[in-house]
Amino acid sequence: MNLVIDSGNTSIKLGLFKNGTLEKVFTTNDYNQLARIITGFDIKRSIISSVRKDQDIIKEKILFKVNPLLLSSGLQLPFKNNYETPQTLGPDRIAGVAGAYYLYPGKSSLVIDAGTCITYDFIDKEKNYYGGAISPGISIRFKALNAFTAGLPLVEKEEDISFIGKSSKGSILSGVLNGATAEILGMIGEFKKNDQELNVIMCGGDARFFERRLKETIFVVPDLVLIGLNSILEYNERFL
Amino acid sequence: MNLVIDSGNTSIKLGLFKNGTLEKVFTTNDYNQLARIITGFDIKRSIISSVRKDQDIIKEKILFKVNPLLLSSGLQLPFKNNYETPQTLGPDRIAGVAGAYYLYPGKSSLVIDAGTCITYDFIDKEKNYYGGAISPGISIRFKALNAFTAGLPLVEKEEDISFIGKSSKGSILSGVLNGATAEILGMIGEFKKNDQELNVIMCGGDARFFERRLKETIFVVPDLVLIGLNSILEYNERFL
Repeated sequence: MNLVIDSGNTSIKLGLFKNGTLEKVFTTNDYNQLARIITGFDIKRSIISSVRKDQDIIKEKILFKVNPLLLSSGLQLPFKNNYETPQTLGPDRIAGVAGAYYLYPGKSSLVIDAGTCITYDFIDKEKNYYGGAISPGISIRFKALNAFTAGLPLVEKEEDISFIGKSSKGSILSGVLNGATAEILGMIGEFKKNDQELNVIMCGGDARFFERRLKETIFVVPDLVLIGLNSILEYNERFL
Repeated sequence: MNLVIDSGNTSIKLGLFKNGTLEKVFTTNDYNQLARIITGFDIKRSIISSVRKDQDIIKEKILFKVNPLLLSSGLQLPFKNNYETPQTLGPDRIAGVAGAYYLYPGKSSLVIDAGTCITYDFIDKEKNYYGGAISPGISIRFKALNAFTAGLPLVEKEEDISFIGKSSKGSILSGVLNGATAEILGMIGEFKKNDQELNVIMCGGDARFFERRLKETIFVVPDLVLIGLNSILEYNERFL
């Protein structure tokens, strides 16, 4: 089996693939649990994407037997990477773009990963990737309002919100949630100006939340980053 | 002269009004400088709006001679305040709404104050105020990306930005600046759905930045909060 690990800002996600199919997904934040989870499986190959810079720890302490690939822009990628500073390109963004190209080859795609950050990444139908945009995700917008102002409370995401907030909490819920929804819709609109055929794929912890609110055709693929990681792992087999 | 003070999250703004006209504006962060600035003027009445909760300090140490009004929703206001939790309504928001009603009486207005936070406040043509929305401003979006993620740098606002960022810095610039612009445009669109005649007034440190990017008719009134404070001060004269 292939083991792919996506170590993100809020949690570590593991995927187990057999013959190209994602068979199991686990989410944890505990390296010991990570080690326990994988003991029951026959892991042939693995790849790690980490934005926490813990990839060496995972490699040394947990995956020392299988010598995993560490995802960076230095690996062979199944698309053309035109990012100007590839050494600073987040591995989760690389994996999301790889996942989009794997699922929708020959199409242009906008990948929106709505997690700690909201990242926007564009790949054209000739598999050229150029870059995109990074804005704060829902949870850190709430945190910022509380941390960087003198008087605003810390609010958490709710499903039913008014457009006009009639209290501090209601105003913050509307500003953060309706605001981020408006941002995503507007950004999709800007990307579509140059490419009407654009495929919009969402992933990340808040993808379902936005899906219900966007009046746009989008595909939610919760395991896009894992799928992309596996495609990069398979792709690199050729060069090993 | 009337002295109005708007103590916000990033700076303290002073306005001096004579016969309803704003004659001088000062910005400072230093209470001693505030005291020095006002010594040269014959101040008859004053009002303080503070989101820093420093209104008592300003009153006791600097304006003890003139006994200023402290703006809260407990004061008489020149509009109908239907906010459900008036005790938590930011005085800067109260003042912005008062300013909009003073400048455009008999019209419905959306006040967008783009500072540390981006606040959206709606008042209808019958001068009913209900509330609005609060989202993070540009500067604290940049701060949040740096403070609440493991690997992103602290970026500052720039004027010329690409839509597709090709580096971490470029991606953050696009996500924060194009993202916030898309948010504001989308929010204006939502407010206008119910009221096509809506007047959109922007103030706050980033108002000019957004004005150049919004393809919407908006009025930028940098001193809206000061104008609103003076209108509240005048209005309360009747009850003294």
